[in-house]
Amino acid sequence: MGNENSSANKKIIVKVPGTSANCGCGFDCIGLAATIYNEFEFNFLAEKSLNISATGEGADTIPNDEKNIVWQSARLVFDRAGANDIQGAEIRMINRVPMSRGLGSSAAAIVAGLIGANAAVENHFSRNEILKFATEIEGHPDNVAPAIFGGFTVSVVDKNAVQTFSFVPKIKLKLVVAVPDFPLPTKIARQVLPKTVPLKDAIFNISRASMLVAALIEGKEKFLSFAFEDALHQPYRTKLVPGMKEVFTAAKNAGALGVALSGAGPCLIAFSSASKKIENHIAAEMVQTFKNFDVQANALILDLDTRGAIVEIKD
Amino acid sequence: MGNENSSANKKIIVKVPGTSANCGCGFDCIGLAATIYNEFEFNFLAEKSLNISATGEGADTIPNDEKNIVWQSARLVFDRAGANDIQGAEIRMINRVPMSRGLGSSAAAIVAGLIGANAAVENHFSRNEILKFATEIEGHPDNVAPAIFGGFTVSVVDKNAVQTFSFVPKIKLKLVVAVPDFPLPTKIARQVLPKTVPLKDAIFNISRASMLVAALIEGKEKFLSFAFEDALHQPYRTKLVPGMKEVFTAAKNAGALGVALSGAGPCLIAFSSASKKIENHIAAEMVQTFKNFDVQANALILDLDTRGAIVEIKD
Repeated sequence: MGNENSSANKKIIVKVPGTSANCGCGFDCIGLAATIYNEFEFNFLAEKSLNISATGEGADTIPNDEKNIVWQSARLVFDRAGANDIQGAEIRMINRVPMSRGLGSSAAAIVAGLIGANAAVENHFSRNEILKFATEIEGHPDNVAPAIFGGFTVSVVDKNAVQTFSFVPKIKLKLVVAVPDFPLPTKIARQVLPKTVPLKDAIFNISRASMLVAALIEGKEKFLSFAFEDALHQPYRTKLVPGMKEVFTAAKNAGALGVALSGAGPCLIAFSSASKKIENHIAAEMVQTFKNFDVQANALILDLDTRGAIVEIKD
Repeated sequence: MGNENSSANKKIIVKVPGTSANCGCGFDCIGLAATIYNEFEFNFLAEKSLNISATGEGADTIPNDEKNIVWQSARLVFDRAGANDIQGAEIRMINRVPMSRGLGSSAAAIVAGLIGANAAVENHFSRNEILKFATEIEGHPDNVAPAIFGGFTVSVVDKNAVQTFSFVPKIKLKLVVAVPDFPLPTKIARQVLPKTVPLKDAIFNISRASMLVAALIEGKEKFLSFAFEDALHQPYRTKLVPGMKEVFTAAKNAGALGVALSGAGPCLIAFSSASKKIENHIAAEMVQTFKNFDVQANALILDLDTRGAIVEIKD
């Protein structure tokens, strides 16, 4: 324990929620955080040494060297804060968010690195600055915004700045997520999208995204039945997820208020009124329908996370 | 007074607000009602006789026969309610909403006819049914929705049905409207729009419309400075309104939170925080800037109407 300064040799624990971007109509701007968490324990070091270990989802695929995205994100904070006294880290992660499934596992890693490092430099940066850094690394705010702020988020990228509005709806929702057993890289899901779209499809989404936000904030369930619908990305991505349309129909028939591709997929998410207690039924129908298309899937039944990433420091 | 039944020979007074559609980013779905009203006095008759008169804005251009849109709208209600005992009407109107300027004068006429007639048949139809009829006649819900419900409205056309969510923002806004001295038929303003648009422009508007609705409902003024912006229709319509960009800039420099083309124009609307009391300054700057482009304009300083169309029956 040669180094006695304030930033090194504290144990910092960060818990970051999984996230679902787009929510149907809110392509590239609306997102939500769910009650499934990756946990990170940081011990930042004065010496140039890295010790990274992971358990849980995708643990064996995670780089344990300089390429690790958690460490890279932490480094960005130290660089920008001028914290030259931190050169290495011990990082332990427990991953529960499935990887490459559209539930924001990479966003969780980035946010964890940034927020863990920011705690080590005594919150040198505001959460809005952390959002800006996270968007820089991830390329878009869709997942990092809800991972940081929790709740539902609306993000606008405005001349390289990012603005995020986060809110907790008046309607209590259950989130039923069907997780297929295959990954779908975002890059491929991006490639199938056209560069131009019919103006009427743009209006389709603008009207529904506006309605979705209004109905959630004001707690008007009756407007949700059509408010999640999308014309701008899901139709093009249907071919990438066998059974997608049918799983959507099965979830709605089982009583879901709305359905959406989670991020770029392949996870599908159904929204259900918490008071109806039909989430198990929706989950079973979604998994069974996937099975009809030879897709093995498991279901997660989650709530909305309302706090976003949280950090705890242990001396 | 030969006819003694309940529907004829009552004096029905309807007051309908002027409206502004789009609000920038909310193309074809967001609208608002303003505190400028057209007033209609109806005396429905059992005999086949029409006596229509108008004073105020555009009074000399309004048909006083079967082609009159107020009467046509009233007729639609009587037809659908099966009220064969009403065959004619005396209609007096006082018009204050400028015509063909993008402030919903035709929507006001349609809504007045429908609501006046509905009152005569003892509210046979709900306000949502009136909305459906009004959208049928007008072709889109953008202006008729706020004219009926008041406040800000978000409308979704969903398989021929129309759903409208109306809300009063937590932020008190002043609406500064610059009214140029030339009309701009909506048909021409529609023709300049492309059939397809870049996907990134669609995202530009989806994110801002979602943010606009969230910021208004929750009363977060800081998010409004960019939330009214549009990439889908205003850029194409700039050429139809000389000085449009410069008037927008002048209004923002004078302290407006946001600016927009009102409906299909040519009116331009600026949104200002009511607490700042800068609406007169914004108005003067907008009018002067139009003048620099040889456009005579006058300014209206309005509040948000929060009630929509109101009806009064006098026996």
